[in-house]
Amino acid sequence: MKIETIRSEGLAHLSYLVSSEGESMVLDPRRDCDIYVEHARRESVNILQIFETHRNEDYVVGSLELQNRIPSARIGHSAATSFKYGDDKLEDEDTFKIGKMLVTCVHTPGHTNDSMCYVVSDASIGNDPLVVFTGDTLFVNEVGRTDLVDIKKHEEMSRKLFHSLQEKILPLGDGVIIHPGHGAGSVCGGAIGSRDFSTIGYECKNNIWLDQSEDDFVQAKLKQHLTLAPYFKRCEKLNTDGPPLLSDIDPLKVIDVSILEDLMQDEENIVVDTRLAGQFVDGHIPRSISLDFKHMGLFAGWVLFPSNSFILLLTSPTDIDEAAGMLYRVGLDTVIGHLNGGFESWKAAGKSIDSLPIFKLEDIKSQLSYGTLEVIDVRQPHEAENDYIENSIYSPLTTIGEDMTKFPPEKPLVAICPAGFRSTTGASIMKRGGLANAGVSDNGLMEWKKRGYPIKTGSNQ
Amino acid sequence: MKIETIRSEGLAHLSYLVSSEGESMVLDPRRDCDIYVEHARRESVNILQIFETHRNEDYVVGSLELQNRIPSARIGHSAATSFKYGDDKLEDEDTFKIGKMLVTCVHTPGHTNDSMCYVVSDASIGNDPLVVFTGDTLFVNEVGRTDLVDIKKHEEMSRKLFHSLQEKILPLGDGVIIHPGHGAGSVCGGAIGSRDFSTIGYECKNNIWLDQSEDDFVQAKLKQHLTLAPYFKRCEKLNTDGPPLLSDIDPLKVIDVSILEDLMQDEENIVVDTRLAGQFVDGHIPRSISLDFKHMGLFAGWVLFPSNSFILLLTSPTDIDEAAGMLYRVGLDTVIGHLNGGFESWKAAGKSIDSLPIFKLEDIKSQLSYGTLEVIDVRQPHEAENDYIENSIYSPLTTIGEDMTKFPPEKPLVAICPAGFRSTTGASIMKRGGLANAGVSDNGLMEWKKRGYPIKTGSNQ
Amino acid sequence: MKIETIRSEGLAHLSYLVSSEGESMVLDPRRDCDIYVEHARRESVNILQIFETHRNEDYVVGSLELQNRIPSARIGHSAATSFKYGDDKLEDEDTFKIGKMLVTCVHTPGHTNDSMCYVVSDASIGNDPLVVFTGDTLFVNEVGRTDLVDIKKHEEMSRKLFHSLQEKILPLGDGVIIHPGHGAGSVCGGAIGSRDFSTIGYECKNNIWLDQSEDDFVQAKLKQHLTLAPYFKRCEKLNTDGPPLLSDIDPLKVIDVSILEDLMQDEENIVVDTRLAGQFVDGHIPRSISLDFKHMGLFAGWVLFPSNSFILLLTSPTDIDEAAGMLYRVGLDTVIGHLNGGFESWKAAGKSIDSLPIFKLEDIKSQLSYGTLEVIDVRQPHEAENDYIENSIYSPLTTIGEDMTKFPPEKPLVAICPAGFRSTTGASIMKRGGLANAGVSDNGLMEWKKRGYPIKTGSNQ
Amino acid sequence: MKIETIRSEGLAHLSYLVSSEGESMVLDPRRDCDIYVEHARRESVNILQIFETHRNEDYVVGSLELQNRIPSARIGHSAATSFKYGDDKLEDEDTFKIGKMLVTCVHTPGHTNDSMCYVVSDASIGNDPLVVFTGDTLFVNEVGRTDLVDIKKHEEMSRKLFHSLQEKILPLGDGVIIHPGHGAGSVCGGAIGSRDFSTIGYECKNNIWLDQSEDDFVQAKLKQHLTLAPYFKRCEKLNTDGPPLLSDIDPLKVIDVSILEDLMQDEENIVVDTRLAGQFVDGHIPRSISLDFKHMGLFAGWVLFPSNSFILLLTSPTDIDEAAGMLYRVGLDTVIGHLNGGFESWKAAGKSIDSLPIFKLEDIKSQLSYGTLEVIDVRQPHEAENDYIENSIYSPLTTIGEDMTKFPPEKPLVAICPAGFRSTTGASIMKRGGLANAGVSDNGLMEWKKRGYPIKTGSNQ
Repeated sequence: MKIETIRSEGLAHLSYLVSSEGESMVLDPRRDCDIYVEHARRESVNILQIFETHRNEDYVVGSLELQNRIPSARIGHSAATSFKYGDDKLEDEDTFKIGKMLVTCVHTPGHTNDSMCYVVSDASIGNDPLVVFTGDTLFVNEVGRTDLVDIKKHEEMSRKLFHSLQEKILPLGDGVIIHPGHGAGSVCGGAIGSRDFSTIGYECKNNIWLDQSEDDFVQAKLKQHLTLAPYFKRCEKLNTDGPPLLSDIDPLKVIDVSILEDLMQDEENIVVDTRLAGQFVDGHIPRSISLDFKHMGLFAGWVLFPSNSFILLLTSPTDIDEAAGMLYRVGLDTVIGHLNGGFESWKAAGKSIDSLPIFKLEDIKSQLSYGTLEVIDVRQPHEAENDYIENSIYSPLTTIGEDMTKFPPEKPLVAICPAGFRSTTGASIMKRGGLANAGVSDNGLMEWKKRGYPIKTGSNQ
Repeated sequence: MKIETIRSEGLAHLSYLVSSEGESMVLDPRRDCDIYVEHARRESVNILQIFETHRNEDYVVGSLELQNRIPSARIGHSAATSFKYGDDKLEDEDTFKIGKMLVTCVHTPGHTNDSMCYVVSDASIGNDPLVVFTGDTLFVNEVGRTDLVDIKKHEEMSRKLFHSLQEKILPLGDGVIIHPGHGAGSVCGGAIGSRDFSTIGYECKNNIWLDQSEDDFVQAKLKQHLTLAPYFKRCEKLNTDGPPLLSDIDPLKVIDVSILEDLMQDEENIVVDTRLAGQFVDGHIPRSISLDFKHMGLFAGWVLFPSNSFILLLTSPTDIDEAAGMLYRVGLDTVIGHLNGGFESWKAAGKSIDSLPIFKLEDIKSQLSYGTLEVIDVRQPHEAENDYIENSIYSPLTTIGEDMTKFPPEKPLVAICPAGFRSTTGASIMKRGGLANAGVSDNGLMEWKKRGYPIKTGSNQ
Repeated sequence: MKIETIRSEGLAHLSYLVSSEGESMVLDPRRDCDIYVEHARRESVNILQIFETHRNEDYVVGSLELQNRIPSARIGHSAATSFKYGDDKLEDEDTFKIGKMLVTCVHTPGHTNDSMCYVVSDASIGNDPLVVFTGDTLFVNEVGRTDLVDIKKHEEMSRKLFHSLQEKILPLGDGVIIHPGHGAGSVCGGAIGSRDFSTIGYECKNNIWLDQSEDDFVQAKLKQHLTLAPYFKRCEKLNTDGPPLLSDIDPLKVIDVSILEDLMQDEENIVVDTRLAGQFVDGHIPRSISLDFKHMGLFAGWVLFPSNSFILLLTSPTDIDEAAGMLYRVGLDTVIGHLNGGFESWKAAGKSIDSLPIFKLEDIKSQLSYGTLEVIDVRQPHEAENDYIENSIYSPLTTIGEDMTKFPPEKPLVAICPAGFRSTTGASIMKRGGLANAGVSDNGLMEWKKRGYPIKTGSNQ
Repeated sequence: MKIETIRSEGLAHLSYLVSSEGESMVLDPRRDCDIYVEHARRESVNILQIFETHRNEDYVVGSLELQNRIPSARIGHSAATSFKYGDDKLEDEDTFKIGKMLVTCVHTPGHTNDSMCYVVSDASIGNDPLVVFTGDTLFVNEVGRTDLVDIKKHEEMSRKLFHSLQEKILPLGDGVIIHPGHGAGSVCGGAIGSRDFSTIGYECKNNIWLDQSEDDFVQAKLKQHLTLAPYFKRCEKLNTDGPPLLSDIDPLKVIDVSILEDLMQDEENIVVDTRLAGQFVDGHIPRSISLDFKHMGLFAGWVLFPSNSFILLLTSPTDIDEAAGMLYRVGLDTVIGHLNGGFESWKAAGKSIDSLPIFKLEDIKSQLSYGTLEVIDVRQPHEAENDYIENSIYSPLTTIGEDMTKFPPEKPLVAICPAGFRSTTGASIMKRGGLANAGVSDNGLMEWKKRGYPIKTGSNQ
């Protein structure tokens, strides 16, 4: 029995390939599924099952994609949702034999009604549970969100989650290893620990959610305000109906400067600049959106829409497949390709270059008091719950595209965030949206606070 | 100026990527065109032009495929044929500037009416021609075939070729380097030398075709009998109309034994066994066709048809892309995938295994004299022109599928070829076609002659 | 916190690279240590510590090797042994801070007196132990051997191990994950489970060694008879003194047939044939030793000696580094290189080829009863404890080189083992040792029993 | 017959691997010889011969290195020099048979007395010469230098070269392909063309050196002033005696910041910063030398010395082998390793950072006229022959280390070169040498001239 964890950065999505004696299962595969196919080929392993832990919201699941490559693999997910694809509609206590593993399905409603955990026993030894794949039900140091199915059912779902955890998961026993659906950095939990594994025994001692009464648990859940990206609904629908196959989309093109200029004539085409935020600020192709490579996996779903098409600007051409994969994972299939030679070739061709003004924190502080400048606070909701710069306008990346119609176009608009990545993305969106005065701060909120600049307590929402 | 030669084994097809100062051209790209795209990405080179030397017959050209990946690349080919795709309809003496290279088109009818050679000068130095890409007009030690356009015009085309060579190519001067469209092993020439380059000076001294009078040249051409594969016509049509894009076909699947059994229920699906011929003889999946990896690039076009679909049996799973590529290159797009785990997994599953009987040369000799066995001579036409085993039935791989309806089904049918690769392919075709008595010899014709066994002089056709 | 398991096949040796926040530690590195160096480079991770779980016997540890590449890494091992190298002499309860991990040393004598386990807490969460690296103290489904330090102290060490397990490891709590020093297939335990991880909770329920009284535990240990390879002593000494650096040995050479023939003139040079056993039986270079690639990691230490030098015969030239690594890991540093072109080039050069006679089980059975043939039983001790072929000579691979001087040279000598790998190795050793009548059986002991051929109960030792 | 060109960037050194029918030869191998070994392994090709075209000056030849890996390969070089290693002392017209190639040695004194060209015929076709490997005798658009053996024999060697070219090379015939020992960018010729191949016919028409009378040729050669790097003498000696083996030197280490600080205590250890010149100017580790990755292959030999040891600062850790190789190629064997995490880790550790002042061209112009600033002209001799900035101090990189003791330490010292790479290297050398006022210009000489700033005609030497 061997467990391979596949981590998709940005989304902090964890999928698993679990093998025993030449047979294997994949849990929650991602859409760019070559990694599982290559494994199956290389090891001559037969993938018998693809299990989904629930109808995911923050990424498009790759089950159909993987089945299209490995037709013997059956797709299983909970019978509680009417999925329009898949082979096995799973009920609580359904079991599967894969190599020397016995896999038992455990229905754990809460995060969704169709949440399913998969408990694995090592049948070569006995029946005791050894590992549980918990999806978005239980994370390291956190538990699943309960606000996504329907905000009106927030309490009901929280209560369900409490029961699922207490009655289905914890009783598996302290010695059971936990492999969750997300790691640190995911928006699917508030404070997921920076580890991709744990044990039930360890979580019982350390995860504060597991040591509360039902009512305390529910009350605490109701107070959690987490990022709600519009693309979640899109993913939910795709994941219920079955997403389109990537093999049906066009291959990635290598674009030269002249073709890029042609493409840029069409408003629907967007240049996505994946270089470091600082490089973008210094100089960029006009109207491009800044999404640095390291963070684009997370932010792409928040700020880009499938009605557009995308041309990528890369630091290294070998990043193309990973960069495109990050868009595919959130249902942005219309990736045209990348600019050959990157920003250097644009510059070498003598094309016009834009930049963003940089505002110093000290100037922001003074100008803000005169009202001659606006600060746009682009943090996530849970970051903006406790304190904020007075008079700053709250507009997270998930809504800035709509919000900005209300920003005063005549004033300097300075995006601000804790460290500087999201503010650059935010400023690039404002600029593309017609706000010529958009800019960034030379430093983030962490520095603002460190300097003792005025901060207001309370929520900025 | 840098010339990269891309050799597609089997077909011995040579394509070229020629660069100068960040710009480049590709000549006669193959269909599985990642190799050019990767190069352009890695080197940030701008592919400006794709040049075709003529409407090829023995493979499907990858021009549209490459343009689909690199949209700035223009496709150029002779105006003498009404291609249904492409951007530049070229005339004699048309010129192109690519980096510091000056490319001059030279119309050289003969092999086809649209044959075009491309002469390159190093413009950083001067105008003298330095390199000529000769396509199928001039090879190392050989010249192009003149029988393919229309066997009725064999003489006319031969005469054209003579003039093209003598008046267009040789006058370029001794010091010009030659890069042809095919190397040794191709069916596009009789005795192409085992080098991929030459010079005009060298060929003038050593290539016997260049030192003949027009009439001698034409007479010698008319006597050449080369392999005429039915798939040539298919490729010609695809290459005139523009072949379909590989990105539109299904991705390659990883098939397990049970799925393979399902697929084998359908007569249209064929297992192509790419292992060594000897391994196939010892044991193979029933009704599979033997095409060993090293030779399948050449023979696949001769014996497989696009009305079928193919499942590959590989020695190593990492060969899948190359193996599928070899089929795509000859227009066999319906490759389903490969059997995961190869022949070992079939055997391990306890499925039925077939083998081919092996006949010893000494037994063949004696039985042949009693008429109790038939020898099927599967050599290419030019190999079978001078001698053969008396009473052997001539049936090259290009026609054995049709011929075999006339073979006596009740007798042992022993395929024979010079070394043993084609005979195994031939026997596997006969067996699949219902001739249960098909088998192979333990040794080839080369050994037969070495032993002094009876050989009849003359053509076996 | 991220744990990467590096499995060295054959030896089933598990080493670990454990990282947190840009810092990391390596546990029991192997000698061919590029894999850790590459990781550190690629991830810009700072390897602070190399921890050894004990003075290993079955492989040469790579601590000095790794430190030579990464000079900032400190080597730590138990103060209980007078290691002649290393930086930290560890005592029970010593702690280290690596990234956000707290590592606590736990002294667990038993397998050796210097056995040390390393307990890791996630300091970003709290102090609870989460993972324990157990070396050869506790395996999945097994516990460490207690016979290696000194067979006279077998009982004493067993008793120590009992106390270490019960008082140091199990009290860590059910929810602690176990990462041991060896996996299934290692000779360091009798029946190690086919998993590389477990938890204390799981082992408490399922590992029979943990549920016994001290006396029962000790008695059971005393009855265990495991492979005792002479090379263990060599490794122990190297691992106490500090092994030589691989960077000081000659680079691997590419040998052609003529150079190989020269080398073969010297008795000290041995050709190691890593092809499949069946291929070796059919034909091999005279006097070569059969060690098929898949098993050589385990068997090389048993049958080869550092006083010899080795030329490898490979199926694929890309295996050279892995194959040489398998020899280096057991202290066989004198690897000259490999024969270019493999066995095919030897054959093509027309050199003499040897083969091994194959005896059918039915013939062995009858001839054995007439005394006209000898069966050499090459199984490991614990395999030969319960039954054997009557009149067979017991001689495991670890001693066959010495034993064979007593075999009757005039009779056919048929090596036998359960499946066929070791018997081929054994026969090749006998043949090289001058026993011209050495051969193999066509099938193993598993088949012998299945057929109901006569088996004698009891130990064959 | 297949020719593979291996280009070592920077030095623009061309080596060749030429194969036919499973046998091959290597011409002028480089020291980091894995590339040839891998080829031999992968293709199962037998390297029979290593040929040196002469005792090279600008790099250390890898013949012994390669022979150490492939012991069957014989080393051949001219009998005209008393090499202390090698197997074949070659004379004019010696021949070798390698596969189907006939190789004829042609003695062509001029660049050195032991210069040897190797003419190859395709023996499968006939005896006509087809390719000539010309070493440093004949380049594309250039001929070899004649000043290196002994500047006092400049005329004598020039005369020899004339005769070698006219009597030995050109008579081979127009249709012979030329593969020289260096490409564009090498200091072994003045204006080598940006191609790695040519033909005799083409060069006869276009290479001005081939169309002159003996006296004109000699006079023109005497006027050529090319870079004379002190390390040439070192390489000559190594290449005569046989250089040490790289396998005897320490493996490359991964250094962390604390170890680097320790190493920097020792004056002999130098940090070589391979980042872009602009990044170095902005911020660098104190006392480090700037040698950007793209140019270090060429400049390393000019400014570094084997009495020092080197720690590399890389942009990407995967560049380590190539970067170290570039030092090994010029006999700088004492490469310690690279700083893990690069400049970022130095910065993150809060260590002190140095930068270089940047002087604007307009300020340089005005200050120069007041004498308040010195311009250090670091161009190569042939670049500084025709014009220069008045009052600038000429000091090429090859001598700046010694010259700088004479520069006025109290004034700003602005290094200048055509584009900006060498000036940064020059300034870093001055700074390390104690000239605290060293800096760079914001633009190079090309821009200076474009702006019409004052330039003096004549030589700056």
